[in-house]
Amino acid sequence: MFQDPQILRALPIGVFDSGIGGLTVLRALRAHMPNEDFIYLGDTARLPYGTKSPETVQRYALQAADFLFTRGIKCLVVACNTASATALPLLQQRFHSVPVIGVVEPGAAAGCAASQSGSIAVIATESTVQGGAYQKAIKRIRDDARVVARACPLFVALAEEGWVTGQIVEDIAHRYLDGLFSVAHAPDTLLLGCTHFPVLRDALRRVVGSAIHLVDSADTTAVALAQLLASQKLSAPVTGSGSSRFMATDGRERFARVAAFFLDQPLNSADVELVDPALVSA
Amino acid sequence: MFQDPQILRALPIGVFDSGIGGLTVLRALRAHMPNEDFIYLGDTARLPYGTKSPETVQRYALQAADFLFTRGIKCLVVACNTASATALPLLQQRFHSVPVIGVVEPGAAAGCAASQSGSIAVIATESTVQGGAYQKAIKRIRDDARVVARACPLFVALAEEGWVTGQIVEDIAHRYLDGLFSVAHAPDTLLLGCTHFPVLRDALRRVVGSAIHLVDSADTTAVALAQLLASQKLSAPVTGSGSSRFMATDGRERFARVAAFFLDQPLNSADVELVDPALVSA
Repeated sequence: MFQDPQILRALPIGVFDSGIGGLTVLRALRAHMPNEDFIYLGDTARLPYGTKSPETVQRYALQAADFLFTRGIKCLVVACNTASATALPLLQQRFHSVPVIGVVEPGAAAGCAASQSGSIAVIATESTVQGGAYQKAIKRIRDDARVVARACPLFVALAEEGWVTGQIVEDIAHRYLDGLFSVAHAPDTLLLGCTHFPVLRDALRRVVGSAIHLVDSADTTAVALAQLLASQKLSAPVTGSGSSRFMATDGRERFARVAAFFLDQPLNSADVELVDPALVSA
Repeated sequence: MFQDPQILRALPIGVFDSGIGGLTVLRALRAHMPNEDFIYLGDTARLPYGTKSPETVQRYALQAADFLFTRGIKCLVVACNTASATALPLLQQRFHSVPVIGVVEPGAAAGCAASQSGSIAVIATESTVQGGAYQKAIKRIRDDARVVARACPLFVALAEEGWVTGQIVEDIAHRYLDGLFSVAHAPDTLLLGCTHFPVLRDALRRVVGSAIHLVDSADTTAVALAQLLASQKLSAPVTGSGSSRFMATDGRERFARVAAFFLDQPLNSADVELVDPALVSA
């Protein structure tokens, strides 16, 4: 690790996700920090993480983080909710001299800020819900909060299939969500605890109605990181180029195609580097 | 490898799948060969295979096969359509002294046998459809066949979620399938080219109607393997115990829970062995 702050601050920010959902976080990071350079790694050979055990997700996350630090990054954003919920303390311990942030704490903060009543519904992957990371993070911020959580694995498949609006999406959303909102002290806020879910925002809005606050982690994560870099004098020089490099562990063509949809900009598959973090740390 | 046929025939049959879908094949194998012992390996740490590249699926399949042969098996069934479509020739080359069969050729044979008109619709994962393995296998058996194929990735998620009947499943099936059947020379046969799909059979039947033949690979794979073992004098002794052992690369509890649903029998998570084929052949 470089110790010279002038060299360190010119390095890119590493962003890691199980696949392409984390690109919704990258988009917010780029919008908030236009001078920063980014390296994004999507572990597409082993996705999804949300149905896998904590031990396996931790192993995968450590391999990915090791890999990104060997490429030279000044800090790490774990843009995957499942990996944030499961592996963040491990990663922060391993790379203790640099900022390592996840999306769960910023997401929980956004949910608490949006909710007037303190009754918050969280939707996420099976693994994130079972681990209870969002529930605990919300309670740490606001100990009178009432939190209900529900795993919505089909939302991931819908987002990847590109079926993001229409009757089928709304019917599935009703099946997952109606029970959460038809109770006494019903939530006034729906926290999207998986980076795939923001692309379904319009359909979710129609299902839960206009009175419910819909929040995700992307913007609050970007704000939290910008503050952290500034406080540690690690922000990029104003001459920074604002570039993004993309790496995936499988399927460059598919990555580029789906990423273009998530980032809302074209991406050439030739610009996606194919890598294998499992080999680096084996 | 044991050369003594008496020792060899007493060994179990290895069955490999990306996860739990291949259990529909195991169920058919057990029904057709009640004296045989089985070892089933589900690569749940890296599933699904159907959205991944051929190179990655081949690497995973070779690791799994290597692992099963180190445990002592007399033959290998690749119960995953994606791995069969992508990696079968590689596996047959590597383990050339023993029977290695997949599910694509038996599935294609079942489709050709069922179809009167020779017009066959195949539904499978993205990777299986893009590779064209079913289309080629059907044409090899029946060169006048007309084959249409469609990837239905949401069916995998529905099967894993246990949403196998009802309006949502049927609406999704209509969206995927209506276009296949509303053409001139419409197919008279729907071939389920993914081992997850048979659990959706009732819903698919309602969507395509009673006139369409619904076929899958499980029974024809079992018949093909029984014949192959008999011809090579590798069938189990009649005193064979008919046992099944289960191994998974992740999530014993989840494996046991979903497997019970697929096998239609209880399975205790303590009876699922957690293994890592990637370490064996690294």
